[in-house]
Amino acid sequence: MKIVIHGLGRMGMQIARKLAESGEHTVIAHNRSPKPIDEAVRYGATAAYTEQDVLDALGTDPAVVWVMLPAEITDAMVLRWTEILPKGSTIVNGGNSDFRKTKLLNKQVTAAGMELIDIGVSGGIWGYTNGFPLMCGADSESAFSGITSALETLSKPEGMYYRFGPSGAGHYVKMVHNAIEYGIMQSLGEGFRMLHDGPYDGMNLAAAADLWQHHSVITSWLTELSREALAENPELDGISGYVAESGEARWTLEAAKDLGIELPAIQAAFDVRLRSQQGETNFATKVVAAQRNKFGGHNLNGEGAAK
Amino acid sequence: MKIVIHGLGRMGMQIARKLAESGEHTVIAHNRSPKPIDEAVRYGATAAYTEQDVLDALGTDPAVVWVMLPAEITDAMVLRWTEILPKGSTIVNGGNSDFRKTKLLNKQVTAAGMELIDIGVSGGIWGYTNGFPLMCGADSESAFSGITSALETLSKPEGMYYRFGPSGAGHYVKMVHNAIEYGIMQSLGEGFRMLHDGPYDGMNLAAAADLWQHHSVITSWLTELSREALAENPELDGISGYVAESGEARWTLEAAKDLGIELPAIQAAFDVRLRSQQGETNFATKVVAAQRNKFGGHNLNGEGAAK
Repeated sequence: MKIVIHGLGRMGMQIARKLAESGEHTVIAHNRSPKPIDEAVRYGATAAYTEQDVLDALGTDPAVVWVMLPAEITDAMVLRWTEILPKGSTIVNGGNSDFRKTKLLNKQVTAAGMELIDIGVSGGIWGYTNGFPLMCGADSESAFSGITSALETLSKPEGMYYRFGPSGAGHYVKMVHNAIEYGIMQSLGEGFRMLHDGPYDGMNLAAAADLWQHHSVITSWLTELSREALAENPELDGISGYVAESGEARWTLEAAKDLGIELPAIQAAFDVRLRSQQGETNFATKVVAAQRNKFGGHNLNGEGAAK
Repeated sequence: MKIVIHGLGRMGMQIARKLAESGEHTVIAHNRSPKPIDEAVRYGATAAYTEQDVLDALGTDPAVVWVMLPAEITDAMVLRWTEILPKGSTIVNGGNSDFRKTKLLNKQVTAAGMELIDIGVSGGIWGYTNGFPLMCGADSESAFSGITSALETLSKPEGMYYRFGPSGAGHYVKMVHNAIEYGIMQSLGEGFRMLHDGPYDGMNLAAAADLWQHHSVITSWLTELSREALAENPELDGISGYVAESGEARWTLEAAKDLGIELPAIQAAFDVRLRSQQGETNFATKVVAAQRNKFGGHNLNGEGAAK
């Protein structure tokens, strides 16, 4: 299929690359700055430096534009596309947007005679290799079926895509996924801190993580990433332990409040991140920062881009 | 090697079976009640219905006795063996004991001229098939090397064993493992509750778990067990949501207090279990109960044996 990828950051570039390299799709690469576009061209995409370039490449038929931008500017960009694309087009929001905003935005896109599909993308910087897990929401099954050939490509070889419900459902499932992620990361961080700061000097934390990866109950990708980080840097030297929060856990906690639900473990993990930003860091938050760096390429000592 | 397995409960039986079936070890099966002994004999073990049977089977040389009993009676049983085994014998405590008690017990065993090795065994009821992850502590490397051929067998094909330090270190690492387990289980439970009780009716929770198992950041064995439970029983009907706490998280929190360390996520998960026992149950605690059942065979609606 023909698809525009708008936003060639860490995740957008991987998506453009995977689609273009498959040879099964015509990928039109669009970005504010030109350099990532040139990179995407090397993977087989078509360059579109301006909106007019995008429209020229698309022709007059209804189009599919995948917007992969930071949450702060996504809504404005999606609305911009509704002004210039042909009616009947489909806009994919693949960023980490608040599902409540997605539902509102969907009304505006629908009013413009187009379809909005929300897709939560996990897998970090490894999705290109492993295949992405894609959490989808769309009001219309027909619009969704119009993009499944791209999702099929992106989920190969070991990812998966699934439509969880109407507009916003994909971002909702991704939001909850990330909130769980906060809780798991913090739990592991606390455990490694207990090994590191505990009564047994010289405890081999990487060996503990390695052993736990051999069919213990806590076998997990995050345990594996902890093992890698601790094997490379046993004391996590040079990692400040500042851990950014990128919105999803905050939204999850807000949504839970609306539902009258308590989420004590997720709340605890979230609070620790807030406190880390006030300088309250320790070996647990260092482990969490190291994990984030491993799965998402996030800066070890400061703000990381959304993943 | 020749080894006594004392305590043929869920975990002890698997250990006796795996060792006996390997054909590489002489396994002497001992238990309070005779029926599990008869089962172990079918796997190739030698029956020892009484202490005298054990001593007769061992002969006069220093021996290895693996005690696999509930924490409450383990210390007394270990001390009993120090009274009747030849000096130079090795006693393995494979149960979930408090590492602080292990260190005290070790002094008594050492004073009796024997060695105590502590081993935390994870892997639930799947260790027989997958191989056990075995977290070991021992003051003496020579005593430890005397049992590694058995550990080699028990960890096949995909488990692992490792000595983390002196006496108590194995139980300490296992204790921390289980505390992390509490946090991960609760985080997943809270997330699935957000999907179940959230604004999207009829959300397919098993599909979410399935998708998350396809290279999302929270890919984990516990996510996979959640998927299985939710696929079989989407509403978790008939599960009360009562979740037992089996000691390790409590000990971890106590040890953390001694160290001046806060463990907010693990504390939150622990508190939820306590409240579940007071009747404060919800979909999150049902998920946790279902996970426990999947990995450890624990009763879905009440007290489960330690694993």
